[in-house]
Amino acid sequence: MFSSAAELKALAPWKQRKTIVFMTDFGSADGAVSAMHGVADSVCQDLRLEDMTHEIPQFNIWEASYRLLQTLPYWAPGTVFVCVVDPGVGSDRESVAVLTASGHIVVTPDNGTLSHVAKKIGILERRRISETENRLKDSQRSYTFYGRDVYAYTGAKLASGLMDFESTGPLLETEPLMLEIEDPKIENSFIFGTIDVLDTRYGSLWTNIPDTLFFESGISYGDEVYVSVSKKDRLVFGYRMKVCKNFSEVSVGEPLLYINSLLNVGIALNQGSFAKTYRIGTGGDWKISIKKVDPVR
Amino acid sequence: MFSSAAELKALAPWKQRKTIVFMTDFGSADGAVSAMHGVADSVCQDLRLEDMTHEIPQFNIWEASYRLLQTLPYWAPGTVFVCVVDPGVGSDRESVAVLTASGHIVVTPDNGTLSHVAKKIGILERRRISETENRLKDSQRSYTFYGRDVYAYTGAKLASGLMDFESTGPLLETEPLMLEIEDPKIENSFIFGTIDVLDTRYGSLWTNIPDTLFFESGISYGDEVYVSVSKKDRLVFGYRMKVCKNFSEVSVGEPLLYINSLLNVGIALNQGSFAKTYRIGTGGDWKISIKKVDPVR
Amino acid sequence: MFSSAAELKALAPWKQRKTIVFMTDFGSADGAVSAMHGVADSVCQDLRLEDMTHEIPQFNIWEASYRLLQTLPYWAPGTVFVCVVDPGVGSDRESVAVLTASGHIVVTPDNGTLSHVAKKIGILERRRISETENRLKDSQRSYTFYGRDVYAYTGAKLASGLMDFESTGPLLETEPLMLEIEDPKIENSFIFGTIDVLDTRYGSLWTNIPDTLFFESGISYGDEVYVSVSKKDRLVFGYRMKVCKNFSEVSVGEPLLYINSLLNVGIALNQGSFAKTYRIGTGGDWKISIKKVDPVR
Repeated sequence: MFSSAAELKALAPWKQRKTIVFMTDFGSADGAVSAMHGVADSVCQDLRLEDMTHEIPQFNIWEASYRLLQTLPYWAPGTVFVCVVDPGVGSDRESVAVLTASGHIVVTPDNGTLSHVAKKIGILERRRISETENRLKDSQRSYTFYGRDVYAYTGAKLASGLMDFESTGPLLETEPLMLEIEDPKIENSFIFGTIDVLDTRYGSLWTNIPDTLFFESGISYGDEVYVSVSKKDRLVFGYRMKVCKNFSEVSVGEPLLYINSLLNVGIALNQGSFAKTYRIGTGGDWKISIKKVDPVR
Repeated sequence: MFSSAAELKALAPWKQRKTIVFMTDFGSADGAVSAMHGVADSVCQDLRLEDMTHEIPQFNIWEASYRLLQTLPYWAPGTVFVCVVDPGVGSDRESVAVLTASGHIVVTPDNGTLSHVAKKIGILERRRISETENRLKDSQRSYTFYGRDVYAYTGAKLASGLMDFESTGPLLETEPLMLEIEDPKIENSFIFGTIDVLDTRYGSLWTNIPDTLFFESGISYGDEVYVSVSKKDRLVFGYRMKVCKNFSEVSVGEPLLYINSLLNVGIALNQGSFAKTYRIGTGGDWKISIKKVDPVR
Repeated sequence: MFSSAAELKALAPWKQRKTIVFMTDFGSADGAVSAMHGVADSVCQDLRLEDMTHEIPQFNIWEASYRLLQTLPYWAPGTVFVCVVDPGVGSDRESVAVLTASGHIVVTPDNGTLSHVAKKIGILERRRISETENRLKDSQRSYTFYGRDVYAYTGAKLASGLMDFESTGPLLETEPLMLEIEDPKIENSFIFGTIDVLDTRYGSLWTNIPDTLFFESGISYGDEVYVSVSKKDRLVFGYRMKVCKNFSEVSVGEPLLYINSLLNVGIALNQGSFAKTYRIGTGGDWKISIKKVDPVR
């Protein structure tokens, strides 16, 4: 992690990664994503063009923000992310490029997509993209596909080294637009948190409770805990389960609490979908509380 | 754009792009697409292997043709496209490689997939692929996966420069097989067109009416227009809406007319699906008419 | 094909392919696959990162094993496959790297994923992956994403040449875990086989009957055969159809028997889904029998 943009910029190699990772809510059934790749490839033939996902639920900025945090740390510093979930395309939301404390660049509409990265990793520098200068040649009559005409183009200029980060546009001194992200807490030996997102295909719940806080509360692997999930204060699920290192510690179909791949508390059914079985959703309305069950003496 | 194959061929660089873009209706749930990539990589390790989409609706040649036009211009001249939507695989339809006026190569069954590119961009030269010579070694007993055995293999030979375009096979003097593509027109201050395709994930209608024709008719951004959509002369939708540069000029859920990323007229609901809401489909049966609403004086 | 690991290793080039092909059941809606790519790219920037599919039905090891066999032979020797369908993640199943007789490397949990490749191609050498040494730095607190922390990391080390195959871990002398794979047979002029898998998007049945055995039985292209499909001895389908080289030899919607792209017998409806129409599934319970219909004299 870097503490200042100056420190980061002093390291030449971060500029040379020549990789773009794309994330959108465009789906992959038409030619939109490929057009973005084509624009990037036309800027520089030597770029690695990677897709994180294009199946962010439409217009869901929260999930875009979360998936960016989930993935970004596993790419080398210097990698450029082009993230386009943009319900306000063409409105007065800013287009920005930011430098993160982890040494990555993100090119995106400044609509909340940067929330998790800003809070958990940190942003060292943020610049407004000049949409007239950093724009695909002859695309001025198109107002609805900034992903292709502005973001892919600017991302490719940055990733290739053909443009310095400083040249993307004027420095912004304000904070990026932030979605509200709640912090977990311990109170009266209950741990309180929110259900941030699902492990999509498996249907496990991913909470905002980090393993460090969880284990600080005095719970250990092998303990039994009582987990309750509520939506707007209405209880949806309440039951005991074991704290496991591995799913295989419980029977198929049994619930468990585990530490997920981002080192936060997760709730799952072994080889089943917890979210589908108990009809549980994600976001600020969905709360979780966890309490250790004391063994009978 | 190039006016002749000779002019194009005089430019050495177009041959050196070393990129293949694949489009099929195979889906991505099994190993078929990866087998095509493997064949191409085995021909030449230095190729960029890109996927446009593999979710063309099965056997839907019209949509394959449209998506090719949507994407191809955003890739650099010299890029090779391998397009396989092939309901007649193994029948007597020709396998061809063509050189477009934009300097791209397309390798495909000649079954209508080239229609939009031929009409809107132009084809300079078209050659029959010799299916016995341009075929993966030892694949003679396989008659149903030309995508892997013939098209990916031939595309890789061309993209890598290991084979000249002239060596793909004999020159064809006839026209490629063309699907019927209607032209839009202005009559009695109505603009008439067809609904060609959807902006898949968002459900917006993409028409065949170019922005130039639309604005020639005397309509401007900010005007109100009356839009009607009919299927085989039965009215399905009729309503007023605003001509917008950006979706955000209308409320969420409100309809609008806009210029899409291909610079054609599109019809959308802001953050909703126009096609789903009004159950609208695509193709020659689906007509649209647009008329300016005169402001009350 | 190589008959020993020594023969294979004597060929330097197989080590230098620098390509990883990923297969999982993770889906592509979140950032999991991209995190795996990021880990591999961080190990070595020069790798080609390819996706076979991430839509293996969840926890379906049989299908993972089949898709690997379907795709692997089309990639050049030296290509590394990272295959993660791992219902027992973190349990005592081994993590292994194997060298196949075709000169490929597969990195995978040893849970049956290697069955088809072991039976049809052969495995020359198998080594246990040391999960403590071959693991992404600082990932020790994560127990549930071996795909990222162990398999992608180890695959990248091998593909890049930064680690020798011998250094992955100790040689295993036992056989890999094998799923039961039945052999087809001819009895009383019936050919008996199983329905292994579907041609997913088209819904054709892929059997375990190779074209060689099929034609040995005295049947030829153009013949009519009687095909019956049963589930646990209950007849589900029984009808006559033609043995075709190409789908176009029968009318749209008509059934046919053909040789598929893996040179096994397939059963299809021309431009329809055989599996959906007749509600047919796959696996050991689903049997097929085929008999030539003698022409009336």
